[in-house]
Amino acid sequence: MGVGFEVQGARRDAGEERLRMAGRTVVWPRGFKTAAVRAGIKASGAADVALLAGEGECSAAAVFTRNRVVGAAVAVDREKIRSGRAQAIFVNSGNANTCTGRRGERDVHVICREVGRRLGIGPERVLVCSTGIIGHYLPMGKVRAGIEAATGPGGLRGTAAAGRAFARAILTTDTREKTAWEAVVLGGREVRLAGAAKGSGMIAPNMGTMLAFLTTDAAVRPGLLRRALGAAAQRTFNKVSVDNHVSTSDTAIVLASGRAGNRELARADGQYERFAAALTRVCDRLARQIAADGEGARCLVTVRATGAASEAEARRAVRAIVGSPLVRCAFHGADPNWGRIVSAVGYSGARFSPERLTCRVAGVRVFRGGRPRPFEARELHRRMKAKEWEVQVDLGVGRSEDFCYTCDLSHGYVTINADYHT
Amino acid sequence: MGVGFEVQGARRDAGEERLRMAGRTVVWPRGFKTAAVRAGIKASGAADVALLAGEGECSAAAVFTRNRVVGAAVAVDREKIRSGRAQAIFVNSGNANTCTGRRGERDVHVICREVGRRLGIGPERVLVCSTGIIGHYLPMGKVRAGIEAATGPGGLRGTAAAGRAFARAILTTDTREKTAWEAVVLGGREVRLAGAAKGSGMIAPNMGTMLAFLTTDAAVRPGLLRRALGAAAQRTFNKVSVDNHVSTSDTAIVLASGRAGNRELARADGQYERFAAALTRVCDRLARQIAADGEGARCLVTVRATGAASEAEARRAVRAIVGSPLVRCAFHGADPNWGRIVSAVGYSGARFSPERLTCRVAGVRVFRGGRPRPFEARELHRRMKAKEWEVQVDLGVGRSEDFCYTCDLSHGYVTINADYHT
Repeated sequence: MGVGFEVQGARRDAGEERLRMAGRTVVWPRGFKTAAVRAGIKASGAADVALLAGEGECSAAAVFTRNRVVGAAVAVDREKIRSGRAQAIFVNSGNANTCTGRRGERDVHVICREVGRRLGIGPERVLVCSTGIIGHYLPMGKVRAGIEAATGPGGLRGTAAAGRAFARAILTTDTREKTAWEAVVLGGREVRLAGAAKGSGMIAPNMGTMLAFLTTDAAVRPGLLRRALGAAAQRTFNKVSVDNHVSTSDTAIVLASGRAGNRELARADGQYERFAAALTRVCDRLARQIAADGEGARCLVTVRATGAASEAEARRAVRAIVGSPLVRCAFHGADPNWGRIVSAVGYSGARFSPERLTCRVAGVRVFRGGRPRPFEARELHRRMKAKEWEVQVDLGVGRSEDFCYTCDLSHGYVTINADYHT
Repeated sequence: MGVGFEVQGARRDAGEERLRMAGRTVVWPRGFKTAAVRAGIKASGAADVALLAGEGECSAAAVFTRNRVVGAAVAVDREKIRSGRAQAIFVNSGNANTCTGRRGERDVHVICREVGRRLGIGPERVLVCSTGIIGHYLPMGKVRAGIEAATGPGGLRGTAAAGRAFARAILTTDTREKTAWEAVVLGGREVRLAGAAKGSGMIAPNMGTMLAFLTTDAAVRPGLLRRALGAAAQRTFNKVSVDNHVSTSDTAIVLASGRAGNRELARADGQYERFAAALTRVCDRLARQIAADGEGARCLVTVRATGAASEAEARRAVRAIVGSPLVRCAFHGADPNWGRIVSAVGYSGARFSPERLTCRVAGVRVFRGGRPRPFEARELHRRMKAKEWEVQVDLGVGRSEDFCYTCDLSHGYVTINADYHT
């Protein structure tokens, strides 16, 4: 069983680690190729069209945003994915094709036809993801040229470099590519899983403008694949909150090529459980990378509520904490301002015992029994300066818990989002 | 009938206006005096202890934060205000005396006894408000000295200058004092109302770290005063959201001296209605000033949802919009990024018709019928650069509406809140 890319970890071996894992992209599982193209949709001139294609038809599953306003691509994909089969995913960054009415949906269908024709597959096997500015029609001339380049000679390739280029082309305001991988042995066969994701703003529980593309060479029936992805997303992508704003285009898609040669996963047995656990680990690493690369972020903070009467109540406490810009500014200043954390619990609606409420910041208990505890402020400040740390509140009324990955709220976030559009 | 201080308005006459209104502070209604003292609680050395006292016992009413974690002063005041009578309010800024357990409450009682003794009134007629950092015990030596100075010779005074000093001493991160006034004629007698407020961070619907002190010389029974204040707060202070974080110390208190000589308001008749409407206008002006002076704010934005199926649904849409840091960053950049507004409606949970959804920004319709509308971006940008403007979304499914006052999210907010404490 392999161990995937970690946001954190022993930095000593970073160079060696990077080399060892360079090949572990979405084309590492057998049966996939990718392409990345500069189509001129992004004003920056960076790559903005990406294509992920199976060598053959794949089992497929997807989860989408719960926003009632959705991008045209989400509306189309939702219908297509019902078949449980897909072979290609076209992605463009720089334009979300959202709030673009019927013309927006027509454009998605044009993309599917065009990609399908060039790859020799039916348009119903092509999925589309678009991320970027809302309310602008896709520049279809550029998109068509992008499709031609991506599907032409030298376009789709199965190399690690192509996989990394794919991971870069899907980014918007992200500062770095996000990848993760795992391997599990099922019935004597090595099954590979890998993923690439983007997302750093408009990220809230129930996904953000977050795209994740997962590949595996496992043989697995669509129904089980859907179940595994749904469970994984619930425990990973849905635990990320950068800014509490639920995007219109969030999508996570998994394609399974079946090339690993394992006996097809067809029921929820032990093999399925191990596959699903591996998929969850891949998604978890991507989720943590998304939170750590939140717009303007300096640190990844895991906010955990324990001792709750129910998981739903724990979630309420967690969301009140991560939903407070005041709390997240204190994270940015590495300021152990537990008063903001405790007061957020106070208005969260979660039941708690004022006499038993406990708050730990970066491993230090700063509040217990309704009263501040003495702590060494300088040492705690130093701990909060780390790239990753945890906040824990214990509500003191039960045994349930929940958590969320978030980041600090910085000047960088304001700069990025005050000037993104006009 | 007078017209009070406005956040906005004809700036031409600002100097003249300022002169005309200089006398309209909380001591303008007859029967009140104030004091303001530098007691050394704030590190800055600014005034941090304020006292408002009636010349005699007053009718009194108050509303408090709905946070379950409350400051010690709130816990004590809640009990005292049940009598409907009070004569003095002690306020300190720089320390919220929250999460300070029994010792915190004991300190509040000490303050009440001390103030009462110095003024020759019972401690049960003294209310206390504390605002500032959470989780620190009050520096009682400084507080005692502050009480002595405020109640000593040259302390309590009924002058306009004293009223303004009071309005300044209650501030924390506010950049300017917030006052408003009204006069109504009830049964041939001029009845005066005035208010002073503080609050610019930790402000969310259901009040923020917001303190408001209202005085009137009307004769009005406590039950009616409570009713008028409750209704006014619901329509004004509860419509302010700076950062979605509900404070532990929010308090609005009204004292009525009865010195106007009007027939005591004892039932909900026409005179009461006019008094209550005037009180609401005073509170509304204070609420707008609080939003306009939100931490780091450049502009006051009124976010309004119309065409909703119910007021509760309109509120949901409004709160999703003002709760999004992405939206508020766009306000800061004067960026007509209606996509963020529309997508916030999409995840708000409010029912809406995608085909009839309309969005106006600063008077310009930018989105209608699920599609962007062409607009002159430069002109709209110019309008959004104003000190005050409005966002309106029409949900297209009913006739109910709600609104909220908010402000932009700026670098200044991050600076203030990343470094407030340690």
